[in-house]
Formats: sequence, C-alpha cells, structure tokens
Amino acid sequence: MSEQKLFIDGLQYNSWSEEIFSQIHEGGLSAVHVTISYHEDFQETVQNIIDWNRYFIKYSDLIFLGRTAEDVRKAQRESRTAIFFGFQNCSPIEDNIGLVEILHTLGARFMQLTYNNQSLLATGCYEKKDSGITRMGKQVIKEMNRVGLVVDMSHSAERSTLEAIEVSERPIAITHANPSLWHPALRNKSSEVLRALGSSGGMVGFSIYPHHLKDGSKCTIESFCGMIAETADLVGIESIGIGSDLCQNQPDSVVQWMRNGTWSNDLDFGEGSASLAGFPEQPSWFKDNRDFSNIESGLKSVGMDSKNIEAVMGTNWLRFFESSFGSA
Amino acid sequence: MSEQKLFIDGLQYNSWSEEIFSQIHEGGLSAVHVTISYHEDFQETVQNIIDWNRYFIKYSDLIFLGRTAEDVRKAQRESRTAIFFGFQNCSPIEDNIGLVEILHTLGARFMQLTYNNQSLLATGCYEKKDSGITRMGKQVIKEMNRVGLVVDMSHSAERSTLEAIEVSERPIAITHANPSLWHPALRNKSSEVLRALGSSGGMVGFSIYPHHLKDGSKCTIESFCGMIAETADLVGIESIGIGSDLCQNQPDSVVQWMRNGTWSNDLDFGEGSASLAGFPEQPSWFKDNRDFSNIESGLKSVGMDSKNIEAVMGTNWLRFFESSFGSA
Repeated sequence: MSEQKLFIDGLQYNSWSEEIFSQIHEGGLSAVHVTISYHEDFQETVQNIIDWNRYFIKYSDLIFLGRTAEDVRKAQRESRTAIFFGFQNCSPIEDNIGLVEILHTLGARFMQLTYNNQSLLATGCYEKKDSGITRMGKQVIKEMNRVGLVVDMSHSAERSTLEAIEVSERPIAITHANPSLWHPALRNKSSEVLRALGSSGGMVGFSIYPHHLKDGSKCTIESFCGMIAETADLVGIESIGIGSDLCQNQPDSVVQWMRNGTWSNDLDFGEGSASLAGFPEQPSWFKDNRDFSNIESGLKSVGMDSKNIEAVMGTNWLRFFESSFGSA
Repeated sequence: MSEQKLFIDGLQYNSWSEEIFSQIHEGGLSAVHVTISYHEDFQETVQNIIDWNRYFIKYSDLIFLGRTAEDVRKAQRESRTAIFFGFQNCSPIEDNIGLVEILHTLGARFMQLTYNNQSLLATGCYEKKDSGITRMGKQVIKEMNRVGLVVDMSHSAERSTLEAIEVSERPIAITHANPSLWHPALRNKSSEVLRALGSSGGMVGFSIYPHHLKDGSKCTIESFCGMIAETADLVGIESIGIGSDLCQNQPDSVVQWMRNGTWSNDLDFGEGSASLAGFPEQPSWFKDNRDFSNIESGLKSVGMDSKNIEAVMGTNWLRFFESSFGSA
C-alpha cells in the first residue's frame, strides 16, 4: 500500500457524513481545517465539539481530532485524516478573553476575527467603514498568539486585515479567499494584503467557492491553477495553499444562516443575490474531496514543478501548522 | 537541594492566594486535588477554570495544571505542585453527558455524583431515601470510565456508593471522609462501603475537616493516626491516603453556599448547626499545608513502617492516578 498523500485543505464546512469522510479518505487528505462555528456562542460551540467527539468515536477508522502538526504526519502514516477545528467568527469567545485558551484546549486552531460584519475585535469585509482592530481585538490577538490559535482574516475588511498582520506577533492566515486582481469580489483580497501576508510568513488558502472564482461556477481548472501560479509570484510560493471552502450537501437554509445568523431582520444575501440566494453550483472539476487530484494535475498543466505542487497541496500548510499551533 | 516529598492531598478547597501556594510548596506536596466547583453549572465552571489558568500563569514557579500521574513526578522533580481539578457535584455537566469528555479535556479528573442531595445521577448522604444510581447515572459512570474522570462518592449515600463501586468498571474514590466506626457522622463511611471500596481497588482519603473527626476540632493527632492504622486493616494499606478537605481562609459565607447552593429557601446547616453555622476550627496539628509533616510523624508514632507511611502520604494516590486518568 502506497503512503497517503500529504494533501491539506485549509477550510471545509460540509454536512458531515460517513460518505464525506470516506471521500476525504479517497481524496488522500491527511488534514482538513473544518469550520465548527459561525455565529454560535460558547455553549453552542461546545455542543458542536460534543457532536464532533461522537464522529471521532463512530468514524475512528477515518478521522481523529488534530491538535498538532505531528498529527498530520500521524494521519498520513495511519491513512486517516486529522480534523482541525476553527471558527468563522469570534462569537464562540463572546466577550470573554479567557475563552480563547479554553477553546484552544478543546481543539480550536483557527478563529476569524470577523464574519462580514463589525465584531468586538475587527471590521468585516461588508461594512462601509473599516475602523481596524479594536481595543479588545488587540488583547485577543495577543492571547491567540500566546496559546497558539491562528488569526484568520478571510471575511475581514482591508484595513483590519493589514492591522492584524501588523499587530499579530505570529503569522496569520487567510484560510479561504482569492486575489481580487483575478476576481474582484468583496471577499477576495487586494495585492497589498496578499503581499503583506506573504512577507510576514502568513498563508492564503485558495478558495473554490464559486462566488470567489472568476466566471463563478463556470471557472475552468486552467484559470484557477493559472491564478495560483501567478499569485505565487506575488505572495511567495511558500505562503500559498488550498482552502476549498467546500460546503458539500448543505441545504440552502445553511447559507442563509451563515449570512444572517441572528443579527438581522432584513434578509442579507451576502455574496449571492435575491435571484441567486442559495449555494452556487460547484465547478465541474471540484465537486467533492476526491477531486483534489484534479488541482494537483491542473497545477502540473500550468507548468508548476512537482516540489512547488507539493508545497501548494499540503506541505506549506503543514509547515504553518508546525509553527502556529503550539504555545508561544 | 533534596528532592521534594511525594505528598499528595486528595482534596482541598481554599481561598487560593500566593500565601497558600507557598505553604503547599513548603509542605512538600507534589500534587493536590482541588475542588473547582460545587454547584456551578457548566459555564460557571469554565469561568473557574479560566481563573485557575490565570493562577497557573501568575504562580508558574509554584503550581501547574496536572493532567496525568506523570505530572506528579514532574512536579516532584521541579519542586512545584501539580493541581488536579475536581467537582463536588455533577452540576458542571448539567443534563448533558457530552460535557463529561469536554470537562475532562479541560482538566477535570474527579467528579462527585452527588453533594448531600439527590442529583440526576445518584443520592446524597443527607436524603432520607437512597434510590441508588439513576438511569442517567449509569450512562455517566460509563462515560467517566471511558474518558478517565474518577467517580467520587464522598458526599453520597450508602446504597448509591455501593452501587457506584459495582457499576463502575474502574475503581472509584472517596476523596475525603473517615470511617463511621471511628466517628459516626452521616458523611463518614460504613465498614461495608470501605471494605467494598478497598477490594475493588478504590481509594479513600482521610479527612481532617473537624465535623468528620472524633472529638471535632479537639481531635488529637494520635487519635487520627490511630484511626488510619486501624482502617488500613479494614480497607487494605494500598487503598488509603489523605484527603484533608482543607478550606483555608474561606469566609463562613462559603460554607453556607456549599450547603445551600441555589436549591433551598430554608437555611440548611449541613454538618453544622444553627449555633455552629460557620467553618469549625481546624485541629491544632493541621492548620495549613505545612502541617503535612505532622501526619507523617504521627503515623510513625502509631508504629507504621516507613514504606506504609509513604504509601498513605502519597504513593497510593499516585498509583491510583496512574490507572485512573487516561482513557480506558
């Protein structure tokens, strides 16, 4: 039996099932960062962890909780997948900085400071004014740095993101987004942000969520992989990976909840619109985790050498995990 | 510098301060099981853990969070004290069995199934009728066994305790109580319970809380150590240790809260009385952690050999920790 590949996905939020865990296995992923909370508060997040603890028992032949970079190597050896927990908003810590360490102890390894809106910590990418990192935000970044919880600015606004890169003493991540140069969505990132991210040792995971793609669901694998090769020149080959943002088998009610949580009476469509309110269709070359090999061959087709392909497909994330998840 | 002693205390609930941590250090304790919750629910318990996390940073030269028996050896080597968390009631898990694993991950190593009253899991020692382990109680014991959270029956009723010993697949503990044969308090334990505990590999920690002592605050060290030597014959020398129940520097409002929590409108005096409602005075030979050596010499005075004294003062608890705190 050949060794499992060292593919790592920087973000997924599926409607989890044995089928999907098996596809992750077939796809050869040794690690996946999964979102376990969007707008959930602390106690709701704990219940999500309890639900995951039950997956870890039921599907122990396929997955286990990842706590360290070494767990990725362990997963590779055992032909399983290490699951790393993350939050797409800071709601799990509520207004209590002590919960940063508590949640890290329970397995959390990534936390976005904002999800589209202003939070207690920073400004989201859909706000009109971006006031940067707040007083509490600076304290929380310091605490996240101390315990080893990665600052994720995927859904944050420009100035907040630049300030987070500056304020954080450890490299940060943008786990799932693309360059706005390639596709000017509000959620995608400016060249200035990507350059600052790369030069500070951070990581960006390229997203395959159609709203982040040039030509949306019709985006070609050539276009996506060409974008990766070009962005490598901008950010640095060691600072890029995949963050597919795969939301497999989720009903449209979930994307509505992602966008609206409990914060709005009027319906917010986020990256969608009234006429395209639900989850957009995945591009033909990335329907589920078994399609990771399509990206690998796509990168080969655009002329990337095998060492760089390995870097993008997993070893960059692995090196980032190594330096990010332990206490400072 | 001589190596720190391997003294272990099976229960304390002090008003923690630098002074007390320093006394623990002077007393030569390598490990203390501390109560962090009585009637607190899950989120209140998490806040108590956050408060302890701050002690661990502030007093890192004296204490650290103990997770495994190996941490006791580490504490001994580093001349510090490993602090092991426990609860005197099952309120931290509320009605949610998933919280057992969550709290174990956060450091909990002991949980009483009851505190004096009927709980969701079992019957407390002050109830008139003892209906034994409940349906949820059986499920929770199984889960505690799985993750490595010790069942503690110190404040439980007779039948419930015997059933817990029977139901639990791993040995249980009575962290702080004495034989009722020596002092017939409701909180002390029958010979039948102590025999069943010993023959199942469990542990009893002898209490120095005056209401558990013959002659209360006037109990002599000879009487206390004589009781230990006699109980060794009943339970087995390998099943006994100290569980001092030291509640140093606590105001009387705390013992009132221990007894009443939020469950009663009428004032309950527990082991006290209207005329002796507060904390009783400690015996002269055990005022704080520096007095552990008094017990050591007291045991010598009643003729115990040095190997057995070491067993009672720490190595029995250590062996119990070794087999109890890991997953099954």
